[in-house]
Amino acid sequence: MITYYNRHHALHQGRFEMFRGELVPCFEVPARADQVLLELQRRKLGPLLDPLTFDDALLARVHSPRYLDFLASAWDQWLALDAGNAQRDVLPSVWPARGLRTDVLPDNFSARVGLFAFDAGTPLTAGSWAVARAGAHCALSAAQAVLGGAPAAFALSRPPGHHAGADYFGGYCFLNYAALAAQHLHDAGLSRVAVLDVDYHHGNGTQSIFYERPDVFFASIHGDPLTEYPFYLGHADETGAGAGAGFNLNLPLPRGSGFEAWSAALEVALAAISRFGAEALVVSLGLDTFVGDPISGFCLQSTDYLRLGERLARVGLPTVLVLEGGYAVDGLGVNAVNVLQAFA
Amino acid sequence: MITYYNRHHALHQGRFEMFRGELVPCFEVPARADQVLLELQRRKLGPLLDPLTFDDALLARVHSPRYLDFLASAWDQWLALDAGNAQRDVLPSVWPARGLRTDVLPDNFSARVGLFAFDAGTPLTAGSWAVARAGAHCALSAAQAVLGGAPAAFALSRPPGHHAGADYFGGYCFLNYAALAAQHLHDAGLSRVAVLDVDYHHGNGTQSIFYERPDVFFASIHGDPLTEYPFYLGHADETGAGAGAGFNLNLPLPRGSGFEAWSAALEVALAAISRFGAEALVVSLGLDTFVGDPISGFCLQSTDYLRLGERLARVGLPTVLVLEGGYAVDGLGVNAVNVLQAFA
Repeated sequence: MITYYNRHHALHQGRFEMFRGELVPCFEVPARADQVLLELQRRKLGPLLDPLTFDDALLARVHSPRYLDFLASAWDQWLALDAGNAQRDVLPSVWPARGLRTDVLPDNFSARVGLFAFDAGTPLTAGSWAVARAGAHCALSAAQAVLGGAPAAFALSRPPGHHAGADYFGGYCFLNYAALAAQHLHDAGLSRVAVLDVDYHHGNGTQSIFYERPDVFFASIHGDPLTEYPFYLGHADETGAGAGAGFNLNLPLPRGSGFEAWSAALEVALAAISRFGAEALVVSLGLDTFVGDPISGFCLQSTDYLRLGERLARVGLPTVLVLEGGYAVDGLGVNAVNVLQAFA
Repeated sequence: MITYYNRHHALHQGRFEMFRGELVPCFEVPARADQVLLELQRRKLGPLLDPLTFDDALLARVHSPRYLDFLASAWDQWLALDAGNAQRDVLPSVWPARGLRTDVLPDNFSARVGLFAFDAGTPLTAGSWAVARAGAHCALSAAQAVLGGAPAAFALSRPPGHHAGADYFGGYCFLNYAALAAQHLHDAGLSRVAVLDVDYHHGNGTQSIFYERPDVFFASIHGDPLTEYPFYLGHADETGAGAGAGFNLNLPLPRGSGFEAWSAALEVALAAISRFGAEALVVSLGLDTFVGDPISGFCLQSTDYLRLGERLARVGLPTVLVLEGGYAVDGLGVNAVNVLQAFA
């Protein structure tokens, strides 16, 4: 299993996130990727490579130009307001609710932040743009490897990506790595690509990006959005729209679900992906389905991730795996690499 | 000038609001209404009355049932999560950006908060519902007085109301007093009612509520939303939609504008209201156009408010005045009562 690793991921480290009316330390920390790296090295699992670099035009295949412009310049705009802002992360404080306009780009920086954000849990820091961009390059490199004949490749970076939409950030995510990888596979000539999202939290960004398209199938197994983040998307009745009708499959499960219910949902998702006739698979690999996760509610055990890896390998498709969530830092390395090793 | 005063307004007192990535003490404080009350008493300006009470069905003439249900039960839901929450105000941390769903009411409380909020500057407290409801009763009482033949009446309460939409809160506002007063006047048989919003910040809530209606004309003079809160509404090209096309007038002015430019815009607004043929006028009376306001950018002087009051009286319509913003606490009493006294 080839791994593309962003060695600079720790340049993004949020200080605080809003949680139940207070600012609390971020759950999404550099130690997450470090743990996965250490476990990969311990088990000597395949080559560990720096990502290739790609033209930013590839990012614009998924994200809007005005959003990319914002991300690329946000930290400089923030510092220009007040040099003391170097000690403070950017968090939104106002945003366009329904009926308010999103077509006009405000001059005010706070207004721009809120225009492009859907939560106050995703601090934008000095390193966010560079790190997210390198994370995207890891995912694109993994897609490139698969296009070159590798059976599978893994993108190891953070923060995660699947909550990021075409023009918004949130859920710790700035760029949607899985969507970028799927689009890259498609652009290279694969007419049908499937994205399977196994993170505890629904991949609202990925779903939204492909919701009206018949060429990328999105399937997700996740905590029921009635009670679980990101709340406003991920219901079973979301099956795609327009030309994409029938190409979106959500399998929400109640908080507390264990591997039996979870793996039954996995079979449903994989059967749909098979019927779709996917030529390649992108896996949004969140490990926050783990029983020990501090902000999630499923009950998977570490050994269950071996079974997940075996099952994904049996699908028999060229596969890009992208690290998403997983906040039980101590278990994250073992759980992620269990999937990868069993797959390999 | 009759004033309806909510003597319990101080039961709503937010602790902190999000401002540029940090939690800072709220600008919207009980001393605001206290200052206006003291100045009214000092100048012995007309009767000071408790508001009448009204059926909550009147609130539902402007606000959605699910939003009112949320406001009425939010604090109890918050306490039910954790008794320690009594020491913490409610602030949103995640919300439905474009593409995310607003049609499903989540079970999760944080998700409900974000569904109904458009900023993190409006802490919902133990007293918010009762105080906003009493504020609405002040505005409805003032409308009732005007319907009964009074030339004008003033609603003195806080927090303000004009940023609250049919189903969202923000900008310190929970219920839209001006919209409720206008709707009440209309429901009593006045077929054409005008709302004039002179607060520094655009009355996005009021505009949205009446945007597709030809029976309530909305005119607003405010800081350009490209640079000024609430940012996402208030541009000059917003002139109404559907049956309401032509019944919305925004007059944004650049930060730094003084009374000369401001009063020229006022004449434009009043001419439009005259052409509309309004039978009654509701004034969203924000005093944050004052040169000393800490979060606004116009340069009106205290004596300018005398001229505003005289000018509004010359319109010659039955008039309901509702206190909105104004955060230079020391000057707020003099400035507000200058308008009222000159009007009377």
